[in-house]
Amino acid sequence: MPQIKLSEISTTAPKKADKEKTKEALKEILDELDDLQNLLYAEHKHSLLVVLQGMDASGKDGVIRDVFGTMNPMGVMVQPFKAPTTLEMDHDFLWRIHQHAPAKGMIQVFNRSHYEDVLVQRVHKWIDDDMAKKRFAAINGFEQLLQEHNNTHILKFYLHVSAGAQQARLEERTQDPRKMWKYNEKDFTEAKLFKTYQKMYEDVFRNCNKVPWTIVPSDHNWYKEFLIAQTVRDTLKSLKMKFPKLPKPKNNAVTKA
Amino acid sequence: MPQIKLSEISTTAPKKADKEKTKEALKEILDELDDLQNLLYAEHKHSLLVVLQGMDASGKDGVIRDVFGTMNPMGVMVQPFKAPTTLEMDHDFLWRIHQHAPAKGMIQVFNRSHYEDVLVQRVHKWIDDDMAKKRFAAINGFEQLLQEHNNTHILKFYLHVSAGAQQARLEERTQDPRKMWKYNEKDFTEAKLFKTYQKMYEDVFRNCNKVPWTIVPSDHNWYKEFLIAQTVRDTLKSLKMKFPKLPKPKNNAVTKA
Repeated sequence: MPQIKLSEISTTAPKKADKEKTKEALKEILDELDDLQNLLYAEHKHSLLVVLQGMDASGKDGVIRDVFGTMNPMGVMVQPFKAPTTLEMDHDFLWRIHQHAPAKGMIQVFNRSHYEDVLVQRVHKWIDDDMAKKRFAAINGFEQLLQEHNNTHILKFYLHVSAGAQQARLEERTQDPRKMWKYNEKDFTEAKLFKTYQKMYEDVFRNCNKVPWTIVPSDHNWYKEFLIAQTVRDTLKSLKMKFPKLPKPKNNAVTKA
Repeated sequence: MPQIKLSEISTTAPKKADKEKTKEALKEILDELDDLQNLLYAEHKHSLLVVLQGMDASGKDGVIRDVFGTMNPMGVMVQPFKAPTTLEMDHDFLWRIHQHAPAKGMIQVFNRSHYEDVLVQRVHKWIDDDMAKKRFAAINGFEQLLQEHNNTHILKFYLHVSAGAQQARLEERTQDPRKMWKYNEKDFTEAKLFKTYQKMYEDVFRNCNKVPWTIVPSDHNWYKEFLIAQTVRDTLKSLKMKFPKLPKPKNNAVTKA
């Protein structure tokens, strides 16, 4: 993905996409996903890591509730990554991330991720370009480790919202009593850095795309959720998973209790 | 360290080394180490990872007791890596290792390590050469991650014993009532694979020496412990650590209670 320009990529659903039909299609995909996740868990060979990145109010929480919330929670884990704790700061930046890598059979969703260490930290100049470069290399190595050594399939989604949609959603949080709990004064300060964030995201896409990013137009939640669910469904389907058969009885097996 | 031949490297103390003088020297080094570890903890900038590898009965436990046991346990952690649990097997081989990477200010000792995954597993052909190669690359990346992203200094020691010394020590465990708890029938079977293990170790030295290995002649415990203590001392000394000064009082600081 060389030299992506986010400003040239639409944040809205394609014009030909019909909202009601897309919602119906999503429902069908969610049914499929429920089965596929059960199969993933039963087969116990692969695992899935879903990385959700995006600006504040880009709709990451909504994806978790609406796409992953319909599956059996026994096989789905969600881990948010907020500002690191003191203990986390005393380790390399991938230490806290690696602990939450998915076990075989599991779907792990990252609400933000190791990419924050080359986004917010660069926007605020807490690290220089040289360190960012080293982190890119470390991230690529880490993702390769999960792929090659635990059969982990990684899906990375960038939830692409316009500055206008972001601003409207942040303001909604100051008005809607059901959303006020999400209000954070700092989000408005960060939103002013929208363009710098976009630049840093573009640099991430350039340097960490061995496991490819999917850029998800996210101004319309219904389209965003459809696209992500579809990608997850297609990935799981491509694994050609099978339910394990009963093991052959051993010669000395007790056949009656 | 290209093409090391372990059979050509002595397992005994050099002839000129005097046992009593070496033991006296070790005592002095241990005093220094106690101070250096306190400084490492206080400065809170670096961390030290000590990897102990070697055949069964090569004396890893003794090093931990005699070299690291004299330091303040607040700043020293020991982690043994035995056969992986079911949960560990459901993750990449570095998952359980990374969790025990040292925090800033700490000394972490690994009693066996991620290297078992390219030793015992190769000796028994549980993985093929292609997977071993991938693991070498992953290990090199992992060690680089700790160095570059958490200021971790890594010391890797191979405790080099002769097949004869190993056999004598294993047999001692069948006779000495204070050592019988270490007896494991399987150790005798593994000891028969001595030469294969040596070959796999040589391959490790060839492929994972970006962080260099120290080969420690280990037939004589007094020499082995001296050499390891000296290497740890020299490494900590080279860090030029300093005690942090009192922070400057803030303008609005309360100077009286």
